[in-house]
Amino acid sequence: MNPILVEVLRGNAVESCHAGALAIVDASGAVHTALGDIERPIFPRSAVKLLQALPLVASGAAEAFGLNDAELALACASHSGEPEHVATAAGVLAKLGLTADALECGTQWPSREPVLRGMLARGETAGPLHNNCSGKHSGFVCLACLMARNAGTDPAAFARGYVAAEHPVMREVSAALSAATGVDVERAPRGTDGCSIPTFALPLRSLALAFARAGTGHDLSDANARAARRLREAVARAPFMVGGTDRFDTRVMQAFGEQLFCKIGAEGVYCAALPALGLGVALKIDDGAARAAEAAMAVVAARLLQDRGDLLHGYSHAVLRNWRGIEVGALRPGEALTAALRAP
Amino acid sequence: MNPILVEVLRGNAVESCHAGALAIVDASGAVHTALGDIERPIFPRSAVKLLQALPLVASGAAEAFGLNDAELALACASHSGEPEHVATAAGVLAKLGLTADALECGTQWPSREPVLRGMLARGETAGPLHNNCSGKHSGFVCLACLMARNAGTDPAAFARGYVAAEHPVMREVSAALSAATGVDVERAPRGTDGCSIPTFALPLRSLALAFARAGTGHDLSDANARAARRLREAVARAPFMVGGTDRFDTRVMQAFGEQLFCKIGAEGVYCAALPALGLGVALKIDDGAARAAEAAMAVVAARLLQDRGDLLHGYSHAVLRNWRGIEVGALRPGEALTAALRAP
Repeated sequence: MNPILVEVLRGNAVESCHAGALAIVDASGAVHTALGDIERPIFPRSAVKLLQALPLVASGAAEAFGLNDAELALACASHSGEPEHVATAAGVLAKLGLTADALECGTQWPSREPVLRGMLARGETAGPLHNNCSGKHSGFVCLACLMARNAGTDPAAFARGYVAAEHPVMREVSAALSAATGVDVERAPRGTDGCSIPTFALPLRSLALAFARAGTGHDLSDANARAARRLREAVARAPFMVGGTDRFDTRVMQAFGEQLFCKIGAEGVYCAALPALGLGVALKIDDGAARAAEAAMAVVAARLLQDRGDLLHGYSHAVLRNWRGIEVGALRPGEALTAALRAP
Repeated sequence: MNPILVEVLRGNAVESCHAGALAIVDASGAVHTALGDIERPIFPRSAVKLLQALPLVASGAAEAFGLNDAELALACASHSGEPEHVATAAGVLAKLGLTADALECGTQWPSREPVLRGMLARGETAGPLHNNCSGKHSGFVCLACLMARNAGTDPAAFARGYVAAEHPVMREVSAALSAATGVDVERAPRGTDGCSIPTFALPLRSLALAFARAGTGHDLSDANARAARRLREAVARAPFMVGGTDRFDTRVMQAFGEQLFCKIGAEGVYCAALPALGLGVALKIDDGAARAAEAAMAVVAARLLQDRGDLLHGYSHAVLRNWRGIEVGALRPGEALTAALRAP
């Protein structure tokens, strides 16, 4: 069993708790912090979108089709479906001469409630551009278009079915994941992600290593090292694109810029790179709770960045309120997490 | 650490898991099944609404104001805010000569998505009647009105502030909880619930005992025993009121009638009574996940009722689909839960 990373208080009593595991690794693979089982494979889900976007840049596709910072940041995003996200994804497809019909991520309503309510009040319907993965998928389609151009075939026809593991686009994505993590993902347990592409279960230690590499370029090919830097820069310049209004990743990267790249994944996953420190981070909440993943990531970021500001503390010790706005409880870091991050 | 009660699969791999504890107790207090720590106090939240409604009936208030089955079932409910729920809560208040202004549960939008979307599309706003607790609170106000009548004072003025622990209404509710559970709740850890009334942390063993008593009347006062039977009958006759469309509690009680009373609570709690077997059930998922609480309750109900039908199996082994409707995983009972419920 993994240790408790985050507790949920109601009044002064612990109401619920979240166990999990955490790996902090440097680019040489040396383990800086290990808490819980960091060797058991876990599905990283959307936490590895930056790694999945490496081929988009490394192949030259992003440059060939003139993708800007916002569009590259959106390729690494789990966005809230706000108008700027939708327009940016549509803009990528327009640069390719394509439309939302090319996306195979499925339809999802915006997670940002005021946006959702506005759409419903206006009688609008959601489409694949509103899907939180529409930027990543637009990037996949962009890569497909470069491949089609190189092969002299029709881009839309070539792109079709790009979510399948055996499609040339997804083979490149899998190869980038294998290169960064040092694990042959073709041999890893495989599932289907929310947006229909394959997701591979990998050890937290390997995921943390991949983000240490993505933050430093160490042990990556020149093309992947440059691509990782370009994507991190793009996200630092356009952090709204990677999440949205009031989202953890957006707010934290707005505050810390290139000091920290972090990205949430479904079912309680977080990955992060701290380039100046040469460290990568990967954590998984056993039960899949996003509230705990964010709180744990906030604790880790505050410790590694030696930050005592309100922003990260507001997540690691988030106040819980009821329907009348009365404060009824709070999150707090578990003792094991605090102890593991104490200066050695 | 408590054992794993429910696992979440993606493909063939376990992606997430939910630990928890389970108590099944008979009305004499003998433990039928214990899994995990059943002595640690947990906040039962809305899982004890039937117990909180005992004074409404035992006092004679429900009879004095002519509450019917639907209205009594709604007093035990965490409903989805559907039109029938809202109208029924308003109807209770109308019988008291009051309006939604008397409710102190706060405003909550309906949890039933098509209802929410319809309201937004029509430009409507939510109020306290839409709060999932509006039926319980209407019952509290009904009790306050009887107390006011007996004291010869103005009902609305007497009811005001009924959510406070020291209000005469909440004192009756606390006394009923103490009587049913055998624990003096005034000495228990206290928090504020989502609907602003006090919630007391109590051992699962005591909660299971309370529901064994509520199912059998054993060791309850005559008034509370009759009240528990009346409330169970009302819920069995109007199970839609206790939850709503596609809700676990509604569907299961529609199927099993008076064989099973069950009620979910926030943060992963379930309580149930199986009157014919003389058993009470209480379980808590450590991390607070509703998906796991429902799955575990389905496993327990199927085992105790010796049911092999599709309904409970559909919850204990719920299929998970992604944005395109593709099957990506499923829930399944943890080995410890299956083993604990195996015939002795």
